[in-house]
Amino acid sequence: MPTTPQAFTGLSAFPLTPADESGRVDTDALQRLLARIVEAKVDSIGLLGSTGTYMYLSREERRRAVKAAIECVAGRVPLIVGIGTLRTDDAAALARDAAGADALLLAPVSYTPLTEEEAFRHYEAVAGATDLPLSIYNTPSTTHFSFSEALIQRLAGLANISAIKMPLPKDGDFAGEIGRIRATAPSGFAIGYSGDWGCPSALLAGADCWYSVVAGLFPKPALALARAAIAGDAEETARLERAFQPLWDYFKAHGGLRASHAAATVLGLKVGPLPRPLLPLGPDALASIETAITGLDA
Amino acid sequence: MPTTPQAFTGLSAFPLTPADESGRVDTDALQRLLARIVEAKVDSIGLLGSTGTYMYLSREERRRAVKAAIECVAGRVPLIVGIGTLRTDDAAALARDAAGADALLLAPVSYTPLTEEEAFRHYEAVAGATDLPLSIYNTPSTTHFSFSEALIQRLAGLANISAIKMPLPKDGDFAGEIGRIRATAPSGFAIGYSGDWGCPSALLAGADCWYSVVAGLFPKPALALARAAIAGDAEETARLERAFQPLWDYFKAHGGLRASHAAATVLGLKVGPLPRPLLPLGPDALASIETAITGLDA
Repeated sequence: MPTTPQAFTGLSAFPLTPADESGRVDTDALQRLLARIVEAKVDSIGLLGSTGTYMYLSREERRRAVKAAIECVAGRVPLIVGIGTLRTDDAAALARDAAGADALLLAPVSYTPLTEEEAFRHYEAVAGATDLPLSIYNTPSTTHFSFSEALIQRLAGLANISAIKMPLPKDGDFAGEIGRIRATAPSGFAIGYSGDWGCPSALLAGADCWYSVVAGLFPKPALALARAAIAGDAEETARLERAFQPLWDYFKAHGGLRASHAAATVLGLKVGPLPRPLLPLGPDALASIETAITGLDA
Repeated sequence: MPTTPQAFTGLSAFPLTPADESGRVDTDALQRLLARIVEAKVDSIGLLGSTGTYMYLSREERRRAVKAAIECVAGRVPLIVGIGTLRTDDAAALARDAAGADALLLAPVSYTPLTEEEAFRHYEAVAGATDLPLSIYNTPSTTHFSFSEALIQRLAGLANISAIKMPLPKDGDFAGEIGRIRATAPSGFAIGYSGDWGCPSALLAGADCWYSVVAGLFPKPALALARAAIAGDAEETARLERAFQPLWDYFKAHGGLRASHAAATVLGLKVGPLPRPLLPLGPDALASIETAITGLDA
């Protein structure tokens, strides 16, 4: 019976990738962000996710980020690396570049919209280029690709494809969705969610993993919340969530990347500019995030 | 009074970019495709559009394609070059790489969805990096970015931004949409459409340009159709369109890129494989396109 890779269970923290205006990664600043997360003892780290601006970094800069992250976290916290890109051969190369990490995360990034068969073959080719376990990055808000449950079932049957990172279900029915995926996936296939404001509920409903943007900046309080939800303690989960509510509102309003960048600025962390064309939030938004994080132990 | 750049009026033909499996452009095959188009005397050529798989080619390969195209068409047909990419600095570099062409086409390619302000600043920065006239590539089916008419108005006011390539209006009201854009844009701002099956109607309604995928492969019959529509001859336009109807159906069913690639294969033109993850259409589709093009003079 396949076992679930440890990287895809519990709380996975997704940090920003500090870089300069030209897209050169600041590996020292990245290691400082990672050290804060390692110290909090989260269950895994998701390097180069959407919040880690992976699509805005060259192959060489992604490689530098991976190397710096491995130096900092190897043997301490499992490291997941995002390897999404448009071309199948390039994604396979990024998978090979991530050797030394513990797991991979692959989004079906597209320009010409993909058919289900094209997405399937893309995953098959990239998973075949690596020995690392891979999570399907189901992120329709950025890729605009929708996975059918039939495609998820087909992908879950491939060797190396061990997990999925789901968006929040529109109907809020985590238990129903998790049950349907588990019914056809091999045992050990890990089902996780992103969209921080919905994830404590996902864990309470039996999800394996919370892929978290806020845990990239607030790993301690996010971990306490995740632990309560994983333990099935609905009351304690609700109590801890109240402190997060202003932050959830903020993230829903501005999106994970811009909101994280603003929060990092308020926390005094060095993260560099957002990659243009993305613009930082204005002074009003910065003031409101300062209020939103008052109750959290950063 | 600004004059409309010639590149953005009449029939603009968008060819495929032949390349091998690794994404290396076959410049000889590209020049052969371009020579067919030049010979038909279309009004402009759109290199590295969506059908030209620009997003799947590296900067170096795009540069090779531009150089080969300039060698082939300079002084004979105005050349538009697609320069879309995720990062603003990279798009500005691509604009500079296209020196020697006649005009540029810029789509707001995104991963993190862009705000209107971010899109505006992106265009402003890229237009500021070049002296060439630029057309706004409004292609929500691939970029998932929607231009408001207010944003189009703001962009049309920037120096160098001389034109827009619009998707077909959902309500089919070309005259209404063209009228609204003309009412606020500087004189000489050129309004064109893509979505071949709707473009003869757009020209009849007063659009300046038909940005055409089919003209990349069937430039002669497409030009005859464009000339009838530009002359305002609705009857002749309808007569000529009847021969295109099976091809319109085919393009609607499969998308411009996959349909073009299949049609090129049937015509015996060397275009190489589609960039993976994109897959070629199957044998049934190839047979049906063979029927669809029987009535056209390729």
